[in-house]
Amino acid sequence: MKIKLNNNFLNVKESYLFSDINKRVNEYKKSHPEADIVRLGIGDVTLPLPEMIVDAMKKAADEFLSKDTFRGYPPEYGYDFLKEAVVKYYKRNGYDLDLDSVFISDGAKSDLGNLVDILGDNDIYIPNPVYPVYLDSNLMSGRRIHYLIGNEANNFLPLPEGLDDEAKVIYLCSPNNPTGATYNKNELKMWVDYAYKTGSLIIYDSAYEAFIKDNSPRSIYEIEHGKDVAIEVSSLSKMAGFTGVRCGYTIVPMELTVGDRSLNKMWKRRQATKFNGVSYPVQRAAEAALSEEGIKACKKNLDMYYENTKLLTDLFTRKGIWFSGGINSPYIWLKCPNNMKSFEFFQFLLEKANIVGTPGVGFGEYGEGYFRLTSFATLENTKKAVERLEKLL
Amino acid sequence: MKIKLNNNFLNVKESYLFSDINKRVNEYKKSHPEADIVRLGIGDVTLPLPEMIVDAMKKAADEFLSKDTFRGYPPEYGYDFLKEAVVKYYKRNGYDLDLDSVFISDGAKSDLGNLVDILGDNDIYIPNPVYPVYLDSNLMSGRRIHYLIGNEANNFLPLPEGLDDEAKVIYLCSPNNPTGATYNKNELKMWVDYAYKTGSLIIYDSAYEAFIKDNSPRSIYEIEHGKDVAIEVSSLSKMAGFTGVRCGYTIVPMELTVGDRSLNKMWKRRQATKFNGVSYPVQRAAEAALSEEGIKACKKNLDMYYENTKLLTDLFTRKGIWFSGGINSPYIWLKCPNNMKSFEFFQFLLEKANIVGTPGVGFGEYGEGYFRLTSFATLENTKKAVERLEKLL
Repeated sequence: MKIKLNNNFLNVKESYLFSDINKRVNEYKKSHPEADIVRLGIGDVTLPLPEMIVDAMKKAADEFLSKDTFRGYPPEYGYDFLKEAVVKYYKRNGYDLDLDSVFISDGAKSDLGNLVDILGDNDIYIPNPVYPVYLDSNLMSGRRIHYLIGNEANNFLPLPEGLDDEAKVIYLCSPNNPTGATYNKNELKMWVDYAYKTGSLIIYDSAYEAFIKDNSPRSIYEIEHGKDVAIEVSSLSKMAGFTGVRCGYTIVPMELTVGDRSLNKMWKRRQATKFNGVSYPVQRAAEAALSEEGIKACKKNLDMYYENTKLLTDLFTRKGIWFSGGINSPYIWLKCPNNMKSFEFFQFLLEKANIVGTPGVGFGEYGEGYFRLTSFATLENTKKAVERLEKLL
Repeated sequence: MKIKLNNNFLNVKESYLFSDINKRVNEYKKSHPEADIVRLGIGDVTLPLPEMIVDAMKKAADEFLSKDTFRGYPPEYGYDFLKEAVVKYYKRNGYDLDLDSVFISDGAKSDLGNLVDILGDNDIYIPNPVYPVYLDSNLMSGRRIHYLIGNEANNFLPLPEGLDDEAKVIYLCSPNNPTGATYNKNELKMWVDYAYKTGSLIIYDSAYEAFIKDNSPRSIYEIEHGKDVAIEVSSLSKMAGFTGVRCGYTIVPMELTVGDRSLNKMWKRRQATKFNGVSYPVQRAAEAALSEEGIKACKKNLDMYYENTKLLTDLFTRKGIWFSGGINSPYIWLKCPNNMKSFEFFQFLLEKANIVGTPGVGFGEYGEGYFRLTSFATLENTKKAVERLEKLL
């Protein structure tokens, strides 16, 4: 063919992180078939869904069986019953949302990637290390990328200090994937104030908000002027274990305007053109998850993950190993002991303790020398890992 | 805010077609509360789903209830069980597909819109009249649009005659929405040959393939060199009544390359970055729909719609009113009698027969003077409409 392709794709690196990890683990298993390998690298929920959520999904599926209850195309922005449930979920934490600012999605990743469609050629500021979607989707659009560097000195919570006064697009993820670091109210206020002053847009990824245990903000709209500067993208993937069910939501406040142009209207136009709404039974399942009963049932799972987290963070505290995350996050981000590099430590853990984790450098160059462990394994396996680490470290 | 927005959105017109129609109908109902209005404008399926499909969805939902059967993130390109079912569905019609060329989507609209991400700044050729998504998603990317004009002379099936030899991106939709016109093998071969000769890409929308009753191609891959020139986007929305369930598939053949760059690899990278796969129970429902038993059950619904289609096409044939579609499509596209304009005929039908249809001009300027009726109403209502039209026309 002779058509023109999007050449920006040439700047997007292939990610070999997880295939590389699998290759290393498989090689080790081959030479050590007896090894009892514990996986603490899992970035996906593992506990079953509460029954009331599955019941809601099945009840909705049954509606397809009769002409009178059959549902065709869903509204592109989501059914009102689910948008209202999202508004109520925010209200529960004390924040008011306009129903018209809520968009139901098939997950945070889609919207985080697709939001670039409505933006022009801005300078993009992205934390490093971080979830790779922000970087890759902006590289695909040919944007100029700047890093907001996370390190031990700032507890992997970069702040706007030292940035110029030009309007920019800033991605923030709190609690952060992979570092688990979570902005407190003062820190997040610094970002909102900066964006408000400079006319910048913050794209705020709050997919891990349900893990927050202290009084850190669960939404950027907790901060004054949040609605004047931020789009918030979130998901039921972690809050309700919906990674396989696929449902999320994005808030584009009516307050977000450039001159007389409304970002909410642009996103509506984008979604009406390139999206056809979320599966009806999925939306009913999400409605159930966001009900008071559903939130309570989901919290039981989150508490079980927290038991695992606590075993790990207690260990690293005892051992004096530096880490972030773990309190408000299923992720523990630790400094590799003895100045080992990320992959060196990966190999060390695999060979000496038969534990698999994720090398921090896989989330950006500033993750080098760090390592991610997660709380999504079983309690039994996490205990096993802690015992082994107790002896090894 | 002071960030830059995507200014191409300024060239995308708001669509007021269906809100305009609703307004007119509501006004009429207000002044004629007794009117028994029959809606033949419905562009969405209405018949219930076969029980075996709903059962598959519910069974899959139940798997979320146990740790051992719980499913987290689905593969971004779809579960193999469903990709294999799609390959088998094509095989059934005699076409071989590479498993790796199949991508499961949440519907044709998403992929049709998102495919622009991997393409560069090409000249875009779009039928007119046609489904508005091709036009709007390319306008949003600032592409140069050229129309492939449909009219009575070409039976609303534009051919590559008269086009220059430059490589271009061509959208084709067969059976067409809204005209129902369907390319036969010879006509489609002209397009494939043209694309092969010029190095062009065809984006082929086959969402209505299951309605084909004659021997017109149900896939562009039926034509020699189809895999060298075309991406095919399809859906279970019409084939299985999945507009509310949300599942489709896109075929990006391994053969599609520009130099050493593979469109299949680019689409994989795009989807891995900006999509997280389709809901697991939805994929199981789609697998059921594509099984032999499922295809048979779904065909019963298609046959019921066809009864309605036939009542309408028989009427227009008797009356000597020009139309396309109806044979291989749930849409009948008719020439407005007495040289009425589309909206004039809309108002005429509404007032004189209490029938609501869709003005053809809503699908592009070359639809002016034409009108779309659909077969998605009940048999009873379609019969009622035919009786009234019999007297009126």
